[in-house]
Amino acid sequence: MIFGDIKVKAPIRWAMVGGGKGSQIGYIHRAAALRDNSFQLVAGAFDIDPARGKAFGETLLVSPERCYPDYQTLFAEEAKRADGIQAVSIATPNGTHFAICKAALEAGLHVVCEKPLCFTTLEADELRALANRQGRLIGVTYGYAGHQLIRQAREMIARGDLGEIRIVNMQFAHGFHSAEVEAANPATRWRVDPKFAGPSYVLGDVGTHPYYLSEVMLPELKIRRLMCTRQSFVKSRQLEDNAYVIMEYSNGAIGTLWASAVNAGSMHGQKIRVVGSKASLEWWDERPNQLIYEIQGQPQQILERGMDYLYPQALEDDRIGGGHPEGLFEAWANLYFRFAMAMEALGRGDQAAVDALGIPGVDAGYEGVRWVENCVRSADAGAVWVEYR
Amino acid sequence: MIFGDIKVKAPIRWAMVGGGKGSQIGYIHRAAALRDNSFQLVAGAFDIDPARGKAFGETLLVSPERCYPDYQTLFAEEAKRADGIQAVSIATPNGTHFAICKAALEAGLHVVCEKPLCFTTLEADELRALANRQGRLIGVTYGYAGHQLIRQAREMIARGDLGEIRIVNMQFAHGFHSAEVEAANPATRWRVDPKFAGPSYVLGDVGTHPYYLSEVMLPELKIRRLMCTRQSFVKSRQLEDNAYVIMEYSNGAIGTLWASAVNAGSMHGQKIRVVGSKASLEWWDERPNQLIYEIQGQPQQILERGMDYLYPQALEDDRIGGGHPEGLFEAWANLYFRFAMAMEALGRGDQAAVDALGIPGVDAGYEGVRWVENCVRSADAGAVWVEYR
Amino acid sequence: MIFGDIKVKAPIRWAMVGGGKGSQIGYIHRAAALRDNSFQLVAGAFDIDPARGKAFGETLLVSPERCYPDYQTLFAEEAKRADGIQAVSIATPNGTHFAICKAALEAGLHVVCEKPLCFTTLEADELRALANRQGRLIGVTYGYAGHQLIRQAREMIARGDLGEIRIVNMQFAHGFHSAEVEAANPATRWRVDPKFAGPSYVLGDVGTHPYYLSEVMLPELKIRRLMCTRQSFVKSRQLEDNAYVIMEYSNGAIGTLWASAVNAGSMHGQKIRVVGSKASLEWWDERPNQLIYEIQGQPQQILERGMDYLYPQALEDDRIGGGHPEGLFEAWANLYFRFAMAMEALGRGDQAAVDALGIPGVDAGYEGVRWVENCVRSADAGAVWVEYR
Amino acid sequence: MIFGDIKVKAPIRWAMVGGGKGSQIGYIHRAAALRDNSFQLVAGAFDIDPARGKAFGETLLVSPERCYPDYQTLFAEEAKRADGIQAVSIATPNGTHFAICKAALEAGLHVVCEKPLCFTTLEADELRALANRQGRLIGVTYGYAGHQLIRQAREMIARGDLGEIRIVNMQFAHGFHSAEVEAANPATRWRVDPKFAGPSYVLGDVGTHPYYLSEVMLPELKIRRLMCTRQSFVKSRQLEDNAYVIMEYSNGAIGTLWASAVNAGSMHGQKIRVVGSKASLEWWDERPNQLIYEIQGQPQQILERGMDYLYPQALEDDRIGGGHPEGLFEAWANLYFRFAMAMEALGRGDQAAVDALGIPGVDAGYEGVRWVENCVRSADAGAVWVEYR
Repeated sequence: MIFGDIKVKAPIRWAMVGGGKGSQIGYIHRAAALRDNSFQLVAGAFDIDPARGKAFGETLLVSPERCYPDYQTLFAEEAKRADGIQAVSIATPNGTHFAICKAALEAGLHVVCEKPLCFTTLEADELRALANRQGRLIGVTYGYAGHQLIRQAREMIARGDLGEIRIVNMQFAHGFHSAEVEAANPATRWRVDPKFAGPSYVLGDVGTHPYYLSEVMLPELKIRRLMCTRQSFVKSRQLEDNAYVIMEYSNGAIGTLWASAVNAGSMHGQKIRVVGSKASLEWWDERPNQLIYEIQGQPQQILERGMDYLYPQALEDDRIGGGHPEGLFEAWANLYFRFAMAMEALGRGDQAAVDALGIPGVDAGYEGVRWVENCVRSADAGAVWVEYR
Repeated sequence: MIFGDIKVKAPIRWAMVGGGKGSQIGYIHRAAALRDNSFQLVAGAFDIDPARGKAFGETLLVSPERCYPDYQTLFAEEAKRADGIQAVSIATPNGTHFAICKAALEAGLHVVCEKPLCFTTLEADELRALANRQGRLIGVTYGYAGHQLIRQAREMIARGDLGEIRIVNMQFAHGFHSAEVEAANPATRWRVDPKFAGPSYVLGDVGTHPYYLSEVMLPELKIRRLMCTRQSFVKSRQLEDNAYVIMEYSNGAIGTLWASAVNAGSMHGQKIRVVGSKASLEWWDERPNQLIYEIQGQPQQILERGMDYLYPQALEDDRIGGGHPEGLFEAWANLYFRFAMAMEALGRGDQAAVDALGIPGVDAGYEGVRWVENCVRSADAGAVWVEYR
Repeated sequence: MIFGDIKVKAPIRWAMVGGGKGSQIGYIHRAAALRDNSFQLVAGAFDIDPARGKAFGETLLVSPERCYPDYQTLFAEEAKRADGIQAVSIATPNGTHFAICKAALEAGLHVVCEKPLCFTTLEADELRALANRQGRLIGVTYGYAGHQLIRQAREMIARGDLGEIRIVNMQFAHGFHSAEVEAANPATRWRVDPKFAGPSYVLGDVGTHPYYLSEVMLPELKIRRLMCTRQSFVKSRQLEDNAYVIMEYSNGAIGTLWASAVNAGSMHGQKIRVVGSKASLEWWDERPNQLIYEIQGQPQQILERGMDYLYPQALEDDRIGGGHPEGLFEAWANLYFRFAMAMEALGRGDQAAVDALGIPGVDAGYEGVRWVENCVRSADAGAVWVEYR
Repeated sequence: MIFGDIKVKAPIRWAMVGGGKGSQIGYIHRAAALRDNSFQLVAGAFDIDPARGKAFGETLLVSPERCYPDYQTLFAEEAKRADGIQAVSIATPNGTHFAICKAALEAGLHVVCEKPLCFTTLEADELRALANRQGRLIGVTYGYAGHQLIRQAREMIARGDLGEIRIVNMQFAHGFHSAEVEAANPATRWRVDPKFAGPSYVLGDVGTHPYYLSEVMLPELKIRRLMCTRQSFVKSRQLEDNAYVIMEYSNGAIGTLWASAVNAGSMHGQKIRVVGSKASLEWWDERPNQLIYEIQGQPQQILERGMDYLYPQALEDDRIGGGHPEGLFEAWANLYFRFAMAMEALGRGDQAAVDALGIPGVDAGYEGVRWVENCVRSADAGAVWVEYR
């Protein structure tokens, strides 16, 4: 994908559920999907309030008659059209993901779903089976994984540049919810309410992001057991606003993860450091164009996005050359671009092509839910070690 | 513009001249213009090779019949259509900007032109007069000015947060042409050839960028005189690959600017530091989401894009909230978004609305050319002081 | 202590045990103690090889007859002199600290001891009781605590600048022993051998440093329980080269600590971050002149050593004004300077003056040993939670 | 000099002129000279007020009878003693350096003098001739040159690691005198008064520091011509508080230097960047333990003080190993340590040994004065180019 070359034969006809007026995440989905003509927004059920959703859809140049009051209508009506939608993205509160995702697959659609895909591994298993039966894609928007240097890290580790992997330290620890901001802000309120957010707040909301980065970078690492402690520093919260996890991997490596929404003053604080017997890598999502590479006994190196010295895998998605900063939108656009290619590949039954794209699919969704489940099980048992299952 | 809200009534019908297959800058123009439905790409003369241009246009979903062999045909044919283009962007080598710009204005089109707008202030004056007669906009893509924190800096300075301005240090000094790379790379070759690049290389190619940032941040500063020394460290080059400029402003402040393509190892190196009697600001285009604010006698502060503590002007173009890194594409998209609003405002004769948008228009184009002219005049006279004219 | 003003009436007559030729730590002790005439080096038992020790002592301008073959002789002979030593510093392998320390106290000397003070809390209790009986000081060289910004952090926390303390993250994680360097390097070998190093390697060797910083900054925090997991990534090692600790404090706060010698490519990696309900502080020992202060919802601030905006406690030990970097030697010199004042104060029975100096004394030594004991107990039981005792 | 090994046979008997109570620079001289027994402070004329000087000397453990009322008495009386001083350091206001230095040399003493050595090259020539006749050393305390990584830079450049040198950018630009602080602070007042400070303020006071670093790193570069512009932003100042210099070197390279005391909010801002045809180096005195090395087309590298991968010249003065930060005191101590070795070498007539030490001697003093003279000549002629003489 150099400078926006199109790789899909024709833009995929696409709709959104949720992501309406004032939704930050909805805008990110659209900006990413529509970036390079891989998708075309033709329909939607953008809002729980149908009138507001239709008005909003029109500002997006969607035909009024294809702005539907709810997802059921969206799927049913579009199925009747020759030019009906082929794919849908789901950007609604967590508690609705499973049902909408299931309905979309049953309607024969490809799905891109906000994380978490669902609340339990049982549900994830059901979605996986359904997607397989239908021959449809489930993509999960672990957007940070679209940054090009994540591919560089994966490749360096695979080639042994770091030696044997010993330690993986992860964190996503911001400070925006240091106070009880949800009292005044409904967009935050549902995140700390288990009815809408599921069994965890920061573990799922932010913790699964660097955890997925570790899956991408270190596909061979398997958790053997873990322990998790979680706290609600803002006392009114039913769900944790801070958590630590320690993981033992089957190869003897050890991992840690800090998830927090009360790390006062931190903007994002998403970092991953992978330590090997020879060298370490460190990446920080607030400076996504740099990757720190430290070989023991040598000067620290700072690798820059877009430079010729990177491995080819880290240059595939370059849009602009080195030096020019890319941001979160490009990372998401890279994901969506690859989602489109995967949908097209699935359409012609080419699973190998899908696998080669390296996208967060239903397995990533499953693993995220599984990891949270294990963390919660440990935490609720008193922060004890639990076998990973 | 929160989360991509559309502000223009309908997308502006838009074409490109140049920016064809393999063009980095062409992709940036399209990615920016098409970001939020402010523009719709409907025609183009993308390539000096008509067949290649047409093939490329089709990958962009432009109708084959609206992929024209050259800009003359583009302007003539589109003028005949009821749904013909309203605006055109020019992304061709420097030496062609003036002629294409002039033709576009004569055809009644709004223009967005790559910098430099032209080679002489005489030409710039002619374009300005023509644009005024036609009631059309000329936008010049000083893309970095679209970063939100540039607006924060402008506002802080205007409000006196820095005290009286004393010093402005600017630089854009990369190292990518430390060796004679143009020997193997045609895309670089024309930049060092005065026939195509005009009277300067790095002064115009990179130096005008931070110079324009200084115009945005410090609209009241006027250069009284300047001196410039320039060098070609790669001996085969006819144009300078390194230059220093010292400027005296009418209020007694002093400015410096370093432009270079031989600053070995530097990725971009575009920085601006404004020093006042009370405090300083510093901004670096490789970390565009941060603005360093140093009040004498107080701890250094790092202001982050998207945060509530910024002035409202710095939040107008927020798409994603603080913490999430935005990059060069968002900066350009902000410019194009404002270009569209300016075109619409001009259409209804509302010059005040255009002025309020704070975009780099024909005056910015004129001032860039003027500054290079003065620098070259000084350098060619032996790096002596010259009155600014 | 501005610009080296002497605060003790006369330099304290001082000797060293250990710290001979080629000893890095020995040089640091001398450079610190002798910095500003608080101490005068007049005797020593510098080396296990008496001849080598005497030769070395002479290069330090110590009279040959006061270069003794062993510490027993040192203490016995000096006791006979009217101008005999008043204090001794111990810079020998860990396993010898307790015996030498005890002998020194019994000889009526003040003691400065490398950490760990001893191997068990029982031993530490014995030393404490002995020191109290003798009216002598035990100082423990947690050298990093001498950095001036540690005092700033302590004061900010005490005054409530951070709000209620929620989280304390600590690490000291270097990479110098990523490979089995001890095979070739005897100075490293004893550190991984429990006979000489005691029950732990990195927990005691590096982990206790940031742990002591947390004691200084947060004197009110008490550990309720902790869990520790430790690993030997270099398989030949009997003691851990990597460890994680999670601590629950009695006030509901939570702490973590990462100690490592296999964090490949990291130079030191000693950091402490304290998170409160309103703001956070972060300090890194490789940039000791800066303290990061992040108030939620405000720009990050970088506090600089030596500046007037700091609290008075952070300026007491200033030698050189802000901007000029101070390093580890100044931190140690600050400790030794205060040790001298404490010895003098004890000499006149002024315990309050000793307490006000805020130095790492026998209690700090005890707490370090206690913390390691608890960590080892947890780790050896399978990384389970243990009540802190 | 590993861990403080003494290299001089016996400490040099040493005195100070100036540097009395409350003097920051006096403390730095003493802390550096006395660091490792290279010098022994035995006498002084510490203060213009004899009683205060004697009282202060006693706090430094100098015998009362060797605390003299003025430098004339100091030199005369010490000359009568068998154990009289061998060397003297001068830490008085600039205007007195020449006379005291001359008197010291005439008294047969080695001299270490604060910069500037004097006010004119004529004076510097006279001192050089006198020193040569007397066989005595003049050392000038360009203290930053003592940082170990300056030697690394010099060696890298000498070995061609950077290719041909093209550009040298220097700055020392702090903000502490952004306001008219001298109104309330006598220690600053003399610096802006030409009677005491000489023909310049910031050019000499701070600008000569990075200029000397460039002499050390790039001994072959010779200035052919230069231009200088200087300003007094605080209007009451007779001497400049800000200046820019552009230098053309005889080999075609170009240099710039920014000296300022009104760079609001900057702590020190002393940096030097050397750009070659292949790579660049950058060093910042506020982070003196790191040297940035950027090879065009490769990742940026950060070299750390004390590491084995450095050239041997950069490890000669290591005291503590890599990772531990050293500061300004170590840089000065390295200079003084080498001054002592040079004095000893001169004593045995070994000029080659002196030259090998690479210290700032009378030539450095001369070149600093010469550079300021040329800058002032240019500035006072209207910031025009002047041939370097």
